[in-house]
Parts: sequence; C-alpha cells; structure tokens
Amino acid sequence: MPKVVIAGAGLVGALNACYFAKRGWQVEVYEARKDIRTMEHVQGRSINLALSERGKSALSAVGLSDYIVNEGVKMDARLVHGIDGVSTDRQPYGHPGQHIVSINRRHLNEVMISQAEKYEEVNFFFEHKVLKVDLDSKQLILKRMEDGEEICVRADLICACDGAYSAIRRALSTQPCFDYSQEYIEHGYIELNILPKNDQFALEPNVFHLWPRGNFCLIALANIDKTFTVTIFAPFQIFEQHMSDDESIVDFFTKNFPDATELIGTESLLETFHRVKPLPLVSIKCKPHNFGDCVLLMGDAAHAMVPFYGQGMNAGFEDCLVLSEVLDQIGDKDIAGVLKHYSAKRVKDAHAINDLAMYNYCELRDLVNHASFKLRRKFDLFLNRIFPRIWIPLYGMVTFSRIRYHEVIERKKRQDRVGVKDFANFNFLH
Amino acid sequence: MPKVVIAGAGLVGALNACYFAKRGWQVEVYEARKDIRTMEHVQGRSINLALSERGKSALSAVGLSDYIVNEGVKMDARLVHGIDGVSTDRQPYGHPGQHIVSINRRHLNEVMISQAEKYEEVNFFFEHKVLKVDLDSKQLILKRMEDGEEICVRADLICACDGAYSAIRRALSTQPCFDYSQEYIEHGYIELNILPKNDQFALEPNVFHLWPRGNFCLIALANIDKTFTVTIFAPFQIFEQHMSDDESIVDFFTKNFPDATELIGTESLLETFHRVKPLPLVSIKCKPHNFGDCVLLMGDAAHAMVPFYGQGMNAGFEDCLVLSEVLDQIGDKDIAGVLKHYSAKRVKDAHAINDLAMYNYCELRDLVNHASFKLRRKFDLFLNRIFPRIWIPLYGMVTFSRIRYHEVIERKKRQDRVGVKDFANFNFLH
Repeated sequence: MPKVVIAGAGLVGALNACYFAKRGWQVEVYEARKDIRTMEHVQGRSINLALSERGKSALSAVGLSDYIVNEGVKMDARLVHGIDGVSTDRQPYGHPGQHIVSINRRHLNEVMISQAEKYEEVNFFFEHKVLKVDLDSKQLILKRMEDGEEICVRADLICACDGAYSAIRRALSTQPCFDYSQEYIEHGYIELNILPKNDQFALEPNVFHLWPRGNFCLIALANIDKTFTVTIFAPFQIFEQHMSDDESIVDFFTKNFPDATELIGTESLLETFHRVKPLPLVSIKCKPHNFGDCVLLMGDAAHAMVPFYGQGMNAGFEDCLVLSEVLDQIGDKDIAGVLKHYSAKRVKDAHAINDLAMYNYCELRDLVNHASFKLRRKFDLFLNRIFPRIWIPLYGMVTFSRIRYHEVIERKKRQDRVGVKDFANFNFLH
Repeated sequence: MPKVVIAGAGLVGALNACYFAKRGWQVEVYEARKDIRTMEHVQGRSINLALSERGKSALSAVGLSDYIVNEGVKMDARLVHGIDGVSTDRQPYGHPGQHIVSINRRHLNEVMISQAEKYEEVNFFFEHKVLKVDLDSKQLILKRMEDGEEICVRADLICACDGAYSAIRRALSTQPCFDYSQEYIEHGYIELNILPKNDQFALEPNVFHLWPRGNFCLIALANIDKTFTVTIFAPFQIFEQHMSDDESIVDFFTKNFPDATELIGTESLLETFHRVKPLPLVSIKCKPHNFGDCVLLMGDAAHAMVPFYGQGMNAGFEDCLVLSEVLDQIGDKDIAGVLKHYSAKRVKDAHAINDLAMYNYCELRDLVNHASFKLRRKFDLFLNRIFPRIWIPLYGMVTFSRIRYHEVIERKKRQDRVGVKDFANFNFLH
C-alpha cells in the first residue's frame, strides 16, 4: 500500500490520518510539538470551535461524528447582549433543529489523536520538526528534537497539515508559480473564562453569546464542563490605549460588557491580561494547494482564515473529505492526478470561505446592530420557509449545508438581486 | 560610527553600500552567490533595464549618474512593429530631450560593485548565505560556503537587498502582523539576442522596440556594444503549445515577428530555446517594510514587480535615496524611528508602482494597438504642453519625475475625470 506522511498532529492532521488508515495506507504523522495529551493547559490562547455541517460530514465518514458531537454543547441561536448589561436579542441560526456545536479545541485535539492511534496503520512521531522538503525524491527532512538528529522520510504523498505557519509551505514558498498571501487584520484577541455558578452554567448554554460594540466585541461559548470560553476581539490599538493597566482594563470591561465582566470576575480578568498579550489574526490564501506530484497543503496551511464565520476547522475537516472523494474518483495510484484535481477544485472554495470570513468579520463587528441587517435576515428566513431548496440564507448555506463555498457566494449574488426593498413591499401586500 | 549589514550585492545592495559609506557608516555586504565579476555570462536569464529619472536621481546623490548613463543607450520613443514585418509606429515617451536609458543588468551590476568597493568603509563578502536573523540580538547568521562554517554578524541595521526571493524576508515571514503577497502572472519570458550587422546596430538603437501581439509580445533594447537584448513574453501555455519543438518555434517567430526573427537568426533562436526554459514573473507586496528596529527590506525584497513599467530597478534605487532622506530628517541615531518612518512612507509608493506595473502589463500586451489608447495619449501630451506643471501624462509622471508613485495614481484619477470624450469635442472646436 502507498505511504502518506502527514506533517502536523492538529485537528486536520489527526482526522486525515484516520481517512488514510481507512483506505489502508501506511500513515506516519510528524508533529513539531510535544504530544498535546501530555502538556499542561495554558489558558488564553485558544478560540473555542463551532462544529457545523461540513465538519460533521467529514467526521461521519470515519465514524467519529456522534462521538465528537457528544463532547460539545449545541447552539441554535446568537444571543446579542445590550450594553446595559440586561437586554438581549435572540437571533436563531436557522430552523428549529438546526444548530452548531461548541467544542473545546484542546479537548477535541486530544480525542482526535487518540482516535487516530487506534488504527494500526497510523504512527505518531512527536517533537519532530520539519526542516525541508525534497520534491524530486519525495522526502521530508526532519529534526528529531530528542537527540538533534536529522532524519529523512520518504513518502508517496506528503500532507502538510501543519497550520497557518506551515513549515512545509514556507520551505516550498519559492517554488515557481506558487501564489500566496498572508494578511493580518487590525484586531487581536485574548481568551478568558467564565466558571460555573453553583455547579451550573453561569449563562444560557445553548446559544452563541455576542457582545458587539462597534469596532470590538466579546463572545462566549459553552463547554461540557459548564465553563464558558470567552474571547475579546479588539484592534491592537484599543488594547494598547484602553486596556493598558489594571484600572483601565476593569473600567473598559465594566463599561462595555457589564454582565460578562461580573461573571468573569475582575481577578481572573486581570490575571489573564497580566499573563498573555493579544494575539494576531491572519488570513492566508494560496494557489495551487499542491507542490508537484507529492505535497498537498491542507487545513490552515492552505487557507487559514479569520475566525468570524466559525468555519476554519470545518473547512479543514472538509478538506479531508474532499481529498477522500477525489481519491475515490481518480484512484489511489494516480497521486499526481489526484493532487492536481483536488487543488483545482478546492482552491476556489478555500478562497471563497476566506472572503466570507473576512466579510463576516465586518458583520459581527457592526452590522448585527443595524436594522437593515435584521430586516434582511428576517426576509431570508421567511423566503427559505417558502422555497427551502432554492432560497437558503447565506449563513445557512455555509453552516448547515455542504454546498461548495464558491457556489454559496454565487447563489448569494443571485439572491441579492431580489433586495430588501422588494421584501418590504411583499410583506406589506401580504 | 554605526554599522550596516547589507544582504545582497545586486544593484540595490551595491548602491545602498555607497549611500551608507558616504554617511561614514561601516558597511558589510554579504552575497550568497559568487562575485558576478568573476562569473561566466549565462545568456537567456536577464531582462535589460531602463534607467529613468528616479534611478538617475538616486545615482546622482552618490555621484554615479553620469558615469552609469554613459554605459547605456538613450531611448526617446517606443517603436511598435507591425505584423507585416515592415510597418512601424513611433510613440514618443515625452517631450524632445526626455528619454530613458537602456542598460545591461549584468554589466551595470559589475560596475556598481566596483564603485562601492572604492569606499574604504565598504567590504564585500561573497558566497555567504543567509540562514536566519535574530531580531533581539540584531544578528545575521550566515553560512560561509567556502568551509561550511556558520558565522554571526552583529549590526545596528540590516538591509535586506537580496531580491524577490529574499532569504531574510523568508526567515522573518512569520513575524506577527507582516502582510505579504506573491502573485505570479500567466506570462513567462525568455531572453534572446540580436548581434551587430556590419559592426552597426541591426535596428534603430534609440528606441524601445515593441512587437505587441495581443496576448504575447517581443521587446528589444540596445546595448552599447551594438547588440540588442530581446525578450519574448508569453503565457506559459503558449510556450508549451506553440513553441514546443524546433519547427514550431521557428514558425511561431517567423509568423509573429518576421523582421525580428531574421535579425535574431533561427540558429541562435533555437540554441537559446534548447538551453533555457521560460522563466516566471512574480509581483510581491509586503507591509511593513521593516522588521522591528533593525531589519529593512529594500528593492525587490520589498516590492518585486512585473517588468512592464521598467520601474523595478528605478524603484529599488529610489529606496536608497528615500532612506537617505529619512536618515537626514530623523537622524542616524534613531534607527527605530527611521525604519518606522521609512516604511510608513514607502509602503504606499511600493504598492502603487506594483499596481501600475501590473496595469501596464495589460497595456503593453494589448492596449497599444487600440485607437482609443492612442487618442488618450495624444490628448495627454497635448494638455501637458499647455499646462506642463499640472497635466503630466501617467507614463511621464512615473518615468520623468520623482512625484511619489502613490500620488501619480491619485493625480491620474483626477485627470481621468476629464475624459477622452471631452478631448474629442475640444479638438473639434479648435
């Protein structure tokens, strides 16, 4: 059987290992860091994940969907918190029964590695750092951190699932005709925590909590242990100017997120701010996703996106499913053909979800408070009820379907030709 | 005095060395390749350069302008060659007296290194390959190819003048908030040659020869040794499909560039095509141009552009002049301040000339044959004669002035509000 080498034991790397093991391939996974299952938890550095349809489909294909969904908390609406600390506005994500699942990234990663390890075809090698790639001889050259030795691994296929800062992508970035861009947004983020209150969720668990405040916002997602992972997104400039010392941090939070601040607690808030700096958010696009006939970029290595559509992990998981579908179609023996076909297909979808995430960055930031946006949403949901197959709101197409991302954009453009104005008339007539 | 380490002994690196030597800085230049003055000439890999106002200004400031201009051939117009092999159309670049200078890249580089070496402050180190950069300790770590030793060089300022594939930029590309993009165009190029005929130029020397053929084109620029450097630009697909074997290559050239093909000669044409593959063309943008308070990207490392405006070298040379101006303004002691100021200023101009070059890519390819474009040019030149200070055609602003590139675009936008249509009326009335 052919051999695949996967760089990166993150979410996409681990899932991809399962996929190839299922096909009977020999699988070796190399990870630069220590085994996450043996590491101490560092708070402040991870955005919670929202598993949606694409991610679920990808997990289903290797029998992991139910197992993983049970590790998370269902969310069926956004709950927008007013600045008064009391008023809220509920915005359902879709129809009754449609929901996304909040999952802790760290926990999910641990579970996924353990699941992949169950396949006898799969071997994990931690603390192995990618140094370079030899495309001609299809070799990955790594440094074994234990003894500093350089080792060479030969493979029929090398999957780079090593994240936004992919060492493989960097090593190959000077290959001719490799288009690439990385763009940072002006916002950074810090992760906070809300502990249970009397052993219960301190906030309603089954919603995505959002405190939109113009140019910055706070979100909170529930975990199964009844905590909430809270994230503040704000321009670096606002962190520097308005959250510079203990007093200003507490002031800023109390003024803008009074209800959340009470639940986080000022002690915990300050402890986190003392320990971590705001982290940057990057959007990455490249084309093609393959290098020659042996290297394929997948997940964040191919298309890291800003986290405002909750699709980063879902798109990465879907990569594994799409690759599997292309392998079925073209055959395991024609790897060159598979990579070419996969890249031609996946690049435009990756670009599309990247653009949508960037668009939602603005929406989350601001639009949710605007009346015209609310009207548009009601219009979408209303029409969707009448023509469920044709008229699916943008968020729904991205989140509750596997309609290809680039088709989502095309459909949205068609739908926008019938505008909110027409709806106002329509509504009035009926 | 402070010490600057320059990575790259290309055109920008060598000129930059002169600038810093003039300020009295200690200068060390590290180059990965051998000394170009000792290397054999490889034909087929270099586009000729057109020195224009910005480049000349930058050379003047270190007393090199007259010297270098004498090494080149003046060009005061485009000469567009018809497909019949006989007809031509002359398009002056500006007013009488305005011209650009055709220079051979290789020769210019040799001259520049020798000029820089004359300063006692300057030392060149060839065959030293950049491995990494330590921003905190302001150290460049290099591999000395001679004995394979790793050496560390400390500097107050590190200038990365190491070209489009800059090793320094790559080593630092994962620094937070470094925006970067590289984009390849569908065209590649191959360099050819026209030898003298009876010891004379085989074509008119003082023009830029252009054979536009829709989606591909040929250009020829004179050298002082009475040869011409000829370049074919075409989509890779056209190279593959229409220039795949000896017969098709000769056919393609004879059909599309009959006059040029005769001068190149089929033997020389085929020899070159056997030896070299078409090379890709990349457009690079990044922001900021500095990393922290000690590394600055300059020239192609900061803003490689497609060669269709003839501004790559000129923009790189102007970088040295702008940096020198900023050093004068802020002072040699505040390097952090200088880098911040330089980057804030230069990024938007680099982006602008990149965009203009990409725009000209389309123009050169196609527009020159269109009547509306010719009309627009006549209109521009006419108005420029009436209001020389206000109404300068786009090409003139880029080529014959030091108006900042981003201001060129802004002025152009204002000018475009008075359109060709108005000119047609105006012309009719007078």
